[in-house]
Amino acid sequence: MARLNHHYRKLTAGYLFPEIERRMKAFQKDNPGTQIHRLGIGNTTEPLTPGVARGLEEGVKRLAAAETYTGYGDEQGLTELREALSRYYESLGAKIDPGEIFISDGAKPDAGNIQSIFSADSVIAFQDPAYPVYVDSNVIAGRSGSYDGERDNYSGFLYMPCREESGFIPAPPAQKADLIYLCSPNNPTGAVAGHRQLREFIDYARRHKAVIIFDAAYAEFITDPGLPRTIFEIEGARECAIEINSFSKFAGFTGVRLGWSVVPKTLVVEGGEPAEVHRCWLRRQTTFFNGASNIAQRGGLAVLSPEGLRECRELIGYYMENSRIIKRGLQELGLTVYGGENAPYLWLKTPGGLTSWEFFDRLLQEAHVVGTPGSGFGPSGEGYFRLSAFGHRADIEKAMESIANRLIL
Amino acid sequence: MARLNHHYRKLTAGYLFPEIERRMKAFQKDNPGTQIHRLGIGNTTEPLTPGVARGLEEGVKRLAAAETYTGYGDEQGLTELREALSRYYESLGAKIDPGEIFISDGAKPDAGNIQSIFSADSVIAFQDPAYPVYVDSNVIAGRSGSYDGERDNYSGFLYMPCREESGFIPAPPAQKADLIYLCSPNNPTGAVAGHRQLREFIDYARRHKAVIIFDAAYAEFITDPGLPRTIFEIEGARECAIEINSFSKFAGFTGVRLGWSVVPKTLVVEGGEPAEVHRCWLRRQTTFFNGASNIAQRGGLAVLSPEGLRECRELIGYYMENSRIIKRGLQELGLTVYGGENAPYLWLKTPGGLTSWEFFDRLLQEAHVVGTPGSGFGPSGEGYFRLSAFGHRADIEKAMESIANRLIL
Repeated sequence: MARLNHHYRKLTAGYLFPEIERRMKAFQKDNPGTQIHRLGIGNTTEPLTPGVARGLEEGVKRLAAAETYTGYGDEQGLTELREALSRYYESLGAKIDPGEIFISDGAKPDAGNIQSIFSADSVIAFQDPAYPVYVDSNVIAGRSGSYDGERDNYSGFLYMPCREESGFIPAPPAQKADLIYLCSPNNPTGAVAGHRQLREFIDYARRHKAVIIFDAAYAEFITDPGLPRTIFEIEGARECAIEINSFSKFAGFTGVRLGWSVVPKTLVVEGGEPAEVHRCWLRRQTTFFNGASNIAQRGGLAVLSPEGLRECRELIGYYMENSRIIKRGLQELGLTVYGGENAPYLWLKTPGGLTSWEFFDRLLQEAHVVGTPGSGFGPSGEGYFRLSAFGHRADIEKAMESIANRLIL
Repeated sequence: MARLNHHYRKLTAGYLFPEIERRMKAFQKDNPGTQIHRLGIGNTTEPLTPGVARGLEEGVKRLAAAETYTGYGDEQGLTELREALSRYYESLGAKIDPGEIFISDGAKPDAGNIQSIFSADSVIAFQDPAYPVYVDSNVIAGRSGSYDGERDNYSGFLYMPCREESGFIPAPPAQKADLIYLCSPNNPTGAVAGHRQLREFIDYARRHKAVIIFDAAYAEFITDPGLPRTIFEIEGARECAIEINSFSKFAGFTGVRLGWSVVPKTLVVEGGEPAEVHRCWLRRQTTFFNGASNIAQRGGLAVLSPEGLRECRELIGYYMENSRIIKRGLQELGLTVYGGENAPYLWLKTPGGLTSWEFFDRLLQEAHVVGTPGSGFGPSGEGYFRLSAFGHRADIEKAMESIANRLIL
């Protein structure tokens, strides 16, 4: 008698985005003809740059010709692309061998799957608030107890609260964790961890023989040269960290699907042999995955060319100008806004002590603008609200105008 | 202290293909200048067809224009593509709603991941020999005991031997299984299950409330109109089966990456609610996966157009002509060969009672031809040898000539 994996039933079922949709539709029904402005999109909106599109087209052309057709590719991904990424890391001041890089179909799959190579009884620590996949993948793997509706958390997990007074960068947990998920630049808070803060986590990880899963999917949005763009800039990270990254927001590949992970061969865990974590991830990827699309990989190569980097950084500049418009606009209204300077996410403190959902309703009803309630990302997100810099300029401007004219503060 | 998932250490580490490479290299070193012919490739070799390449190019162009750019797509994959697949099933005589179809990046990921939505204590049955991912994914999930080198199997799994006398189609297991993996047309044996044989499995599954995972990745190679091309042609399958399929061999997409799975809403398991298996798979896919490349999905739409289907079936015809050449050539030498008529794989009985690896060495040393030892796919593969129909025609002809002139029988 087949039965389902009962851990799925523990999930709080990702009510955040469906609930947003539900309230939007209800508003639209009550207010036909009213234009709703979206400031909560976590998805790229601008077309691919010309050089990157040419790289992808070249990828298709290679498959259509007998001389250049290829089927299954290299186990860890196109060697040329891994070499280009190795050079990219070098430009950031980190030494990563192409053999330590695994090309994937995006940061989300890697962030979800990485836990599966670790022991079922691992103790997991998350930033709170956090991108939901870190939590959900570990719930499904059976590493948590049940969900506590009152405290809005799962028993058995360690939550590291991200607080205003410490710039939304948490301290390492007081208890012993085995796996620690960190995302910097952060989704949803837009906060970026500095060298000293990352060093604290690395010290913690080395002391407790823990592994840090570092999600750097928004690294290209960092403009401040003093902030680390990869955890491997920090000494000691090669002994305790795995990095996950993506072309999604970097190059507008949210639909193209391309990312990568770095598992250093120098990362050794308790009871493991040298390079065994690396071999184990290779085994997981070659068993459950068959490589990213070779077309997307050719596009990735184009992104990392000098022309591609220039174009993509210009595109990021466009989104960051959106971010400045939003931040300035909200600040002019007297609102407190964090993030949005080295990250495409802005973290608004709800005014007048409103809960995240109360502010959602006010913003929708009064200004016809939709964002994302911070409480949807974890208990410490309560009282905050995520806005995103993705969107066409004209739409962003209209949304800000509507907020300025209509939101009652 | 982080530890690895210890089940990975149980794996027999996929020694098959690395061992083939090792022996090939040793031969090449001892015989410099000798040309080695490959008849064991499980990968497409011919370029994409023109109509399909145009579909992919169109996919790139859409992303390069502001009016048509899209990021993350529909949760279960492009609606148009799922509708086209629903019509494709209709043409095979099966009724599948687009909402029951999940677009993926290939059959291997789906075949590896599907077990994860089922209970950790599920009893698993496999065909023996079988495509390794079914076994490996369940070993990693902890559903087996250790590997028994003597018997070449894992304790705790149910192996269904595929024997010559029953055309390599197994009978349902005598014991109670919860999940049953079936692959038809089969890799590696090339055998195709008929209606009656599938009905036996469906009867078994309904009696024991088991779920059949049906891998139909080679269905398009079936030319005999009397053979089922989807398990959903058989009555009762919608209550007990999940189907996995792919564009890899269908359209030469091994590197493009595109596949799909069908989870009927009518499939209910013990203790589960109506449609809960479907919902659970949706939750798994939306948590651990972010959709197949939207470029590849546009290519899939082109495959399913009348022009695309005609072109792709012509390409399959090319490979099947390879298959006829191989089969005829071997039979003329007095060898016994199965499969290769409705599948791109041929299953050769090794002559003179040689083991699979003994025959591998003879074929390599004498005829300079490389194939795949059947024992690499499971204990009942011993004494057999897999040849594949993928390859350029001229290479196939040279390989067959070399066998005819040099193999000492």
